Amino acid sequence: MSKPIVLRLGDVLFAQKVWDQFEEVAEVVTIDETVSREEFFKLLKDPKCKASQAKVITHTVQSLPNVGKWDKEVADHLPDSVIAVCHNGAGYDQIEVEHFNKRHIQVSNTPKLVNHATADTHTFLVLGALRNYSYGYRNFMAGKWPELGEDAGGPFGHDPEGKVVGILGFGNIGHSIAKRLRPHLFSKIIYYNRKRLPAEEEDGCEWVPLDELLATADVISVSLPLNPATRHFVNAETFKKMKDGVVIVNTARGAVIDERALVDALKSGKVRSAGLDVFEYEPQVTKELMEMPQVLGLPHMGTHTIESRQNMEEFVIANARSAAEKGKVLSIVPELKDEDWVKKL
Amino acid sequence: MSKPIVLRLGDVLFAQKVWDQFEEVAEVVTIDETVSREEFFKLLKDPKCKASQAKVITHTVQSLPNVGKWDKEVADHLPDSVIAVCHNGAGYDQIEVEHFNKRHIQVSNTPKLVNHATADTHTFLVLGALRNYSYGYRNFMAGKWPELGEDAGGPFGHDPEGKVVGILGFGNIGHSIAKRLRPHLFSKIIYYNRKRLPAEEEDGCEWVPLDELLATADVISVSLPLNPATRHFVNAETFKKMKDGVVIVNTARGAVIDERALVDALKSGKVRSAGLDVFEYEPQVTKELMEMPQVLGLPHMGTHTIESRQNMEEFVIANARSAAEKGKVLSIVPELKDEDWVKKL
Repeated sequence: MSKPIVLRLGDVLFAQKVWDQFEEVAEVVTIDETVSREEFFKLLKDPKCKASQAKVITHTVQSLPNVGKWDKEVADHLPDSVIAVCHNGAGYDQIEVEHFNKRHIQVSNTPKLVNHATADTHTFLVLGALRNYSYGYRNFMAGKWPELGEDAGGPFGHDPEGKVVGILGFGNIGHSIAKRLRPHLFSKIIYYNRKRLPAEEEDGCEWVPLDELLATADVISVSLPLNPATRHFVNAETFKKMKDGVVIVNTARGAVIDERALVDALKSGKVRSAGLDVFEYEPQVTKELMEMPQVLGLPHMGTHTIESRQNMEEFVIANARSAAEKGKVLSIVPELKDEDWVKKL
Repeated sequence: MSKPIVLRLGDVLFAQKVWDQFEEVAEVVTIDETVSREEFFKLLKDPKCKASQAKVITHTVQSLPNVGKWDKEVADHLPDSVIAVCHNGAGYDQIEVEHFNKRHIQVSNTPKLVNHATADTHTFLVLGALRNYSYGYRNFMAGKWPELGEDAGGPFGHDPEGKVVGILGFGNIGHSIAKRLRPHLFSKIIYYNRKRLPAEEEDGCEWVPLDELLATADVISVSLPLNPATRHFVNAETFKKMKDGVVIVNTARGAVIDERALVDALKSGKVRSAGLDVFEYEPQVTKELMEMPQVLGLPHMGTHTIESRQNMEEFVIANARSAAEKGKVLSIVPELKDEDWVKKL
């Protein structure tokens, strides 16, 4: 019996050994990752290209940079042989799941593995934005300390004590953020989810209505997944409802915040400082954000660690292997979980 | 009865109101803070200058920048009327306490008030150094993200999970650091003090001999006070005993580390990255440290917050007030605590 074909899209950085093991039971093929969208569709139909017989596809945010969104058109062009797309990442907003659903193609992600690394990044940005460390680091690097004296640290920052943190989106990552912020002695950690969690899952945090969170939080931690309902969830209107001088931190997806409205809110002082790991048009960043000393910005480093990346890459292979061997991925995305065709797998 | 005279050295940033209240019971005088050492000594002897009759002096790191160390010569020049020098800061290495001891002049500091703010800074630097966020922030600001792609985050960092933190100097600040690092899931937090603490004061951390800490810690947190015994405590010899690729974080005093040896250790890769809030010759910084992307450096921002500074300034006044009214400061520095003349106060 011939081995199932796995189309691997995206670099292997840390899991080469596990891919090697996987190749004992699967035929792993790749394509030139610089292909255009049209070339990609052609290859998927070309019987001389093994990709056209793939059973499973593994996928990363960076794979096939010229292909764009995995939308209806991509879903429709995938060969009938494909049963699963195994994505590397907790967020999968690059993949429009409903169109894969229609074709009964499973989509998996790598939840939980990213929680700790992302929450560590979030904590760094909360402290950095609250304490104005970005001013200090800029002046330190520029050699301005002797000349500026104590002001090389920029305006005095704030202590967490007595401040309220409001977490928007209290999922796995939100919980990990709350655990890390707690010993910094914030007076209260509140959260907003559409549904209040059972008390035993609240980890000592308190659910409040959205408007109450916006009006009372000194630090707003954005941890919402990006989907059509959460795009620009934080916008000019929501900024208006916030406290003057609020601190905003986002390690979810850039487009959860209207970046233009954020720039305006920073300029007016409504938002005193921001810690941002994600941007609406990344890797392009609104120039003003790069230049403002009150913005501590990172180039999407939420899970930029050897250990987390290796765990994620290996878990993608585990998903692909399970699909190839048993016809079912391990961690199907939540919106597919209750579909009848999935339940029958 | 005339009011006791208090010589206030150093700016008042946040405690003006409490100084105003203090002036109801004390005569607060100041001098031109740009005086030279010689001019200062002259004023202290000039009967026309109220400073020459001061009972209490308040002091900050920045006050009298041209006077230099408060050494034997300064102690000897203080008028006989002075009973206390009330310093603003937890560290008081600018004051050579033994010479004030000889003259039975009390020296007080502001311990505990700085613990949380300093430990928050420490946590920020541990995360930053471990995760290589400094590379990312530099590239973010320089607009290099589109061009560098994922590498705008620099080399992949490390997760805290499975790593050992070693705290050098497990006092109040060391304890606050341990509490904040714990939820980041380091595998173990070990510490070195000359004396092992009683188990109930260890907060779940483990005492180890110095050489064992140096040999096993993945992150070394420096939290030792600076004094003659701890100057260059971390030097070329101690770096040799550390793990290759160790991460060093210092929020204590720069001179606890031999800065030249640190630069060499960073250059060789022995030290993979460093988070530094303090420098041996601050505000001057060894140029190489400013330029290395593996150094996340801050211009001594440990307690750079409105709330902490206000608490510290107010506590200095409380010390001065207690000295002026009752002849005894509230928080005398530890090395004076057991002196006979202090016990009799």
